[in-house]
Amino acid sequence: MYDLVIIGGGPGGLTAGIYAQRSRLKTVLIEKEMVGGQIAVSDVIENYPGFPSISGAGLMEKFEEHARGLGLEITFDTVENITLDGNVKVLKTTEGEMRAKAVIVATGAKPRRLGVPGEKELTGKGVSYCATCDGPFFRGRSVMVVGGGDTAVKEAVYLSKLAAKVYIVHRRDKFRAERMHLERAEAAPNIEFLTSSTLKEIKAASGVVVAAAVEDLKTSRLKDIPVDGVFIFVGINPTTDFVDVDKDESGFIKTGLTLETSIPGIYAVGDCRQTPLLQVATAVGDGAIAAHMVDGYVEAFKER
Amino acid sequence: MYDLVIIGGGPGGLTAGIYAQRSRLKTVLIEKEMVGGQIAVSDVIENYPGFPSISGAGLMEKFEEHARGLGLEITFDTVENITLDGNVKVLKTTEGEMRAKAVIVATGAKPRRLGVPGEKELTGKGVSYCATCDGPFFRGRSVMVVGGGDTAVKEAVYLSKLAAKVYIVHRRDKFRAERMHLERAEAAPNIEFLTSSTLKEIKAASGVVVAAAVEDLKTSRLKDIPVDGVFIFVGINPTTDFVDVDKDESGFIKTGLTLETSIPGIYAVGDCRQTPLLQVATAVGDGAIAAHMVDGYVEAFKER
Repeated sequence: MYDLVIIGGGPGGLTAGIYAQRSRLKTVLIEKEMVGGQIAVSDVIENYPGFPSISGAGLMEKFEEHARGLGLEITFDTVENITLDGNVKVLKTTEGEMRAKAVIVATGAKPRRLGVPGEKELTGKGVSYCATCDGPFFRGRSVMVVGGGDTAVKEAVYLSKLAAKVYIVHRRDKFRAERMHLERAEAAPNIEFLTSSTLKEIKAASGVVVAAAVEDLKTSRLKDIPVDGVFIFVGINPTTDFVDVDKDESGFIKTGLTLETSIPGIYAVGDCRQTPLLQVATAVGDGAIAAHMVDGYVEAFKER
Repeated sequence: MYDLVIIGGGPGGLTAGIYAQRSRLKTVLIEKEMVGGQIAVSDVIENYPGFPSISGAGLMEKFEEHARGLGLEITFDTVENITLDGNVKVLKTTEGEMRAKAVIVATGAKPRRLGVPGEKELTGKGVSYCATCDGPFFRGRSVMVVGGGDTAVKEAVYLSKLAAKVYIVHRRDKFRAERMHLERAEAAPNIEFLTSSTLKEIKAASGVVVAAAVEDLKTSRLKDIPVDGVFIFVGINPTTDFVDVDKDESGFIKTGLTLETSIPGIYAVGDCRQTPLLQVATAVGDGAIAAHMVDGYVEAFKER
């Protein structure tokens, strides 16, 4: 039986692995696809302290080397569900079954895609799902924000302080966002609202975004708007279906300050938990705390 | 008026500075002594993800360069107190006065020193105040733990899994630590208790710890015990006297998940707040969250 199974090999999971190895916990990290998680597809990261500018893949390689250097076992498999046998956590995976005293869920979250032409190929080349991460790359330039909720409008206001011009494209004529956020967006002189409109295509030249094709749903007219960046905020889905703990209405796992979930010995870190900010820096802090708490939990563990 | 004053230039404060600069907040960081904080005196850090092994000073130089590269203003001064003028935070400093919409307290905490000969000079050369940080350096070697509270006994158990031999020196014959922790320490075959004893001196050869002189208080006999490391856990003092927010009985600032204190617009990050783990990784996560929350607070700020 493992002391600890970590599910997910992004920054939170790898940090938990680093700490667990240092605590001599018998640990395995299970990754479904690719070590590094969402951040590994980021072109440039400039806000993980210590690395003023590094590619997402480059940073995650360093994390992985760090963890493996301490002897962390990483295996590729998918966890289908977790059940309890007394206090033992039984993980059913595609390849079989694992038993552990404690589990850290570090499965992250994925932004919802629009599915328009250009979106996938240009992610990291002008298409972004995170203003905090990528906004500063668009200083003095033109960007488009897609979405009508709180996040879209808040991030448009944030971007309006960096970019020269911000378009907000929303398919309805009314916004779901809080009135307060909307007032701030309306007050920003460089934000232009394109309501009852949808983004149909993102266009590139020399491999980077140069324009967005937007359709006015009332007139059915299609127009190319020159922009350097397109920020898409149409929702985010945490990968938490496989674990039956308390979650909020969007599926983000609820934790307290110790990052324990509603089931003792199961912890959640990073983007998959209910947290005010989804960043490498915060996932790292979470991973360290959860592994530390696991150390105490395992020390006191009784099978039933 | 500043949007944000950050008090303290350790990992939490510098991370908040990095994020605040990226959000274009008008920010100043006030440091009392030396940028980098407590961690800058650590010889080696091996658990900040991305840097498998780096000196504390080296890591903090990277943080400082990162923050300054983004234009963060750093000033050397001491904050004496914070009062409110409406919602404006007024900071009285040794050099004058500063006004800000928001404040992030990142002043850290200092372990209490014993004050014995050798302690100060050998800090980072075998003398440590953090088992999570430095324990793995003593794999298979002998260490001494000083103290009788929960932390001392818990950390002795943690160290017993790494070190070949652990002595616990405590000046009383009874421990204050929880019975559960004590039972685990008693069960560890490689932990030896030296009660009614005090550490009198830490001895070095070639600049690293080689022995500890311990006095048996009942017999007044002094004995040199060969050890490679001395871990001192006799308490930790957060630097929070200057700010009048809700704190726990030890002076650690209480916050919720958003890191806001009991005064709106004042946030606390890192070692000075009530948190389960005092690490660079966790201070970094805190700094990012607090700066992000400040961005929203400043956006909605009204002077009264």
